[in-house]
Amino acid sequence: MVRMTGQMDGTDNTDGEFRGYRDTAAVDVVPSPRAVPGDSAPVALLPEAEPVRAVERQLDEILAAVPEVDPIELAVLDAQGLLCAEEVISQRALPAFDQAALDGYAVRADDVVGASPRAPIDLAVVGESLAGASAPSSIGPGMALKVSAGAMLPAGADAVVPAVWTDQGAVRVGVHAGPPAGSYVRRAGDDVAPGDPAVQVGTPIGPAQISLLAAVGRERVLVRPRPRIAVLCAGTELVDVGTAPAPGQVVDVNSYALAAAARDAGAEAYRSGILPTDRRRLTEVLESQLLRSDLVLIAGTFASGGFDVVQEVLAELGEMRFGQVTMHPGPAQGFGRLGRDKIPVICVPGEPVAALVSFEVFVRPAIRLMLGKRQLFRRTVQAIAGQPLASPLGYRQYLHGTVMRHPDGGYVVEPVGDGTDALLARMARANCLIVIDEDVTEVAAGGLVTVMPLLLGG
Amino acid sequence: MVRMTGQMDGTDNTDGEFRGYRDTAAVDVVPSPRAVPGDSAPVALLPEAEPVRAVERQLDEILAAVPEVDPIELAVLDAQGLLCAEEVISQRALPAFDQAALDGYAVRADDVVGASPRAPIDLAVVGESLAGASAPSSIGPGMALKVSAGAMLPAGADAVVPAVWTDQGAVRVGVHAGPPAGSYVRRAGDDVAPGDPAVQVGTPIGPAQISLLAAVGRERVLVRPRPRIAVLCAGTELVDVGTAPAPGQVVDVNSYALAAAARDAGAEAYRSGILPTDRRRLTEVLESQLLRSDLVLIAGTFASGGFDVVQEVLAELGEMRFGQVTMHPGPAQGFGRLGRDKIPVICVPGEPVAALVSFEVFVRPAIRLMLGKRQLFRRTVQAIAGQPLASPLGYRQYLHGTVMRHPDGGYVVEPVGDGTDALLARMARANCLIVIDEDVTEVAAGGLVTVMPLLLGG
Repeated sequence: MVRMTGQMDGTDNTDGEFRGYRDTAAVDVVPSPRAVPGDSAPVALLPEAEPVRAVERQLDEILAAVPEVDPIELAVLDAQGLLCAEEVISQRALPAFDQAALDGYAVRADDVVGASPRAPIDLAVVGESLAGASAPSSIGPGMALKVSAGAMLPAGADAVVPAVWTDQGAVRVGVHAGPPAGSYVRRAGDDVAPGDPAVQVGTPIGPAQISLLAAVGRERVLVRPRPRIAVLCAGTELVDVGTAPAPGQVVDVNSYALAAAARDAGAEAYRSGILPTDRRRLTEVLESQLLRSDLVLIAGTFASGGFDVVQEVLAELGEMRFGQVTMHPGPAQGFGRLGRDKIPVICVPGEPVAALVSFEVFVRPAIRLMLGKRQLFRRTVQAIAGQPLASPLGYRQYLHGTVMRHPDGGYVVEPVGDGTDALLARMARANCLIVIDEDVTEVAAGGLVTVMPLLLGG
Repeated sequence: MVRMTGQMDGTDNTDGEFRGYRDTAAVDVVPSPRAVPGDSAPVALLPEAEPVRAVERQLDEILAAVPEVDPIELAVLDAQGLLCAEEVISQRALPAFDQAALDGYAVRADDVVGASPRAPIDLAVVGESLAGASAPSSIGPGMALKVSAGAMLPAGADAVVPAVWTDQGAVRVGVHAGPPAGSYVRRAGDDVAPGDPAVQVGTPIGPAQISLLAAVGRERVLVRPRPRIAVLCAGTELVDVGTAPAPGQVVDVNSYALAAAARDAGAEAYRSGILPTDRRRLTEVLESQLLRSDLVLIAGTFASGGFDVVQEVLAELGEMRFGQVTMHPGPAQGFGRLGRDKIPVICVPGEPVAALVSFEVFVRPAIRLMLGKRQLFRRTVQAIAGQPLASPLGYRQYLHGTVMRHPDGGYVVEPVGDGTDALLARMARANCLIVIDEDVTEVAAGGLVTVMPLLLGG
């Protein structure tokens, strides 16, 4: 699968002289209408002061730095989707009392041994116990009590004869089959005994856990909370979405898209919008976001040198590192831990497609780690490439694509657009990211690639 | 797989005489410690006035009756996860102006034809265009403008030479390769032209769609809203979760569990709690819920005859049908369309496991239909049964289970508990429902069964 070639679009393979050149170009993945002529391969090295960093190393640094957010107590319905952060011990037995498991007649099993449709055994019906009735009753030999499912079992009874096994009489009942002692009876504590753990630390709370928490009498529960994430964007070219952009200006889409992505990943995201350009105001905004957030996410076009006012202010607030990561799109990444509480700050590129790709690669796993999830990363599948795919050598390429099930089994994936530079409308048609490893420069049509389906929710 | 036998637990197969009997028992799926002796098979028919109904028929009636909720306009961030209900036409071009696709030098392609590292072509750098700069510039022959990704392309330029293909000069720049016209340039409207549809009716709105909506200047968007669902429960035995239950009383877990399940399915669920027992208050509560809801969900133990005060009041508010559906757990189901607006009302059994199973079977698909989703039902997989499973003939059995991937591929499933009567703590350990069809009474260990993984979210 690894071919050392500068050919990117798979349609024009006449010029081989440029091989090796494009492979070393950090951002060179837009195919030209024709191959670019050239004599040899100049190697464009980045300055030594700013080493290029592997995706995994950047991710490891971020994951090592994200804080474990302190557990909070929430109303059980608000705990949905979060992880339980306490050992919930039941003070109660579940069920709370011996009860009928279905509608029928509570009996003494000894009384109905040998009953059959041809030789039914007759019992006196001494009353009825409905679900919710609190007066305890009892039966003696030769007696039955009509019961509904969930009703208290009378003292003396040790089995329930299902109604359909009887003549369903009201005063006397003819029993057609005698179940053994214990049949169709739910004993107190069968499900949960007092002192038993009901919901354990680390259990994801869904409807079934909420059902159990309510049953043991819990209205509130301690959980790993949703991390609070402030989403900001930086750039003198940016205007808010309500403003018609002047020539050269660009609407702030990233604070919306990244806040949506952060919510989808499980965070409580606050869209704080465009950072001010005035240095003092900028410092104030950043400081206040650091105080109220578990993580700060900033999208912007940051120069590697750090001469930008935003970069300068960030550097004043703590240790902040901007540099190139070996990924495309979005090699320009920043990370630091700022403020008194060393809050993690992740800076992603301002180009909206690169911003959302960077979110998938670095921010979503960080949010899931803060939520306490075991599975930090999206599931990937192998898919057959429907067309040739190109990737710069040494860079992990993320292409938006559409993945479909193949009628013969497995999956087929096609990049959106021309398979190189996803723009917004193209990205919106994608349902996956195609991931092409650093050491692969070309995938032939029919070759296998790794695909990360971008399902919403969960 | 279909065996006409009353044997349910797969461990005791000595008594065959009872065959056929248990198969016709509607609720008889709790295995006895030993098989019940008997002479022949009495057939327990339900009264003719109340025909037993297939699961599919009940579901079809519900799905045919749920209303299409009118679209509403929401802020784009609140639209996440919902379906777009309008054709969003862009008034703008995206990109809004011709721009550099990467950092480099804007040039006239004709000027750099034949450039190579050995024979670089020198151009005069006449300035710099940063992303966000609004003053349009221009270049003439022999000139270059330094550009950053996203910066406006100067008039006269028709290509961008990536910085890494040059000596990166500031006053004059040596170009080592001449890309053809159009290279590394994003033309205005390449992604979306004015008048193009940006987001179409029926598109699920996620971060990428929110990005696109913001880019075309939309702060709000018309969507299919979350259906409003009132969740209530009925039963004289019920007490609220904060109350210690007296003997015979049961804590209301269903209004919590069903509200959580409804939210998980995408609804806006309101937990309205336990219905009052006073007839006038009961009517008032139901009428007010019908006015403010798209669907009303009530859990309770309803007699088939309809003599319950809740059933009577429901019948006064419109056409309401209670009856037996051929499923276990939870055969006692009710459905109607009540009030002036004929709001669908679904009644599910009060037993909490049956309530959540009924939710999966009837309510979740109804919610997804109201949301406009194409995929109403959960994905199912075939799994190998790790132990024998029993099911009453003529009834579709839903068992809570845990499904795991088998090391050799495929899935293996085990029921929780003893595989018959799931209680709350057992249900909370399950990650799937095992579905056993109406015509199957026994699945041998190693046989294939249909499994519905119960994933949260989405």
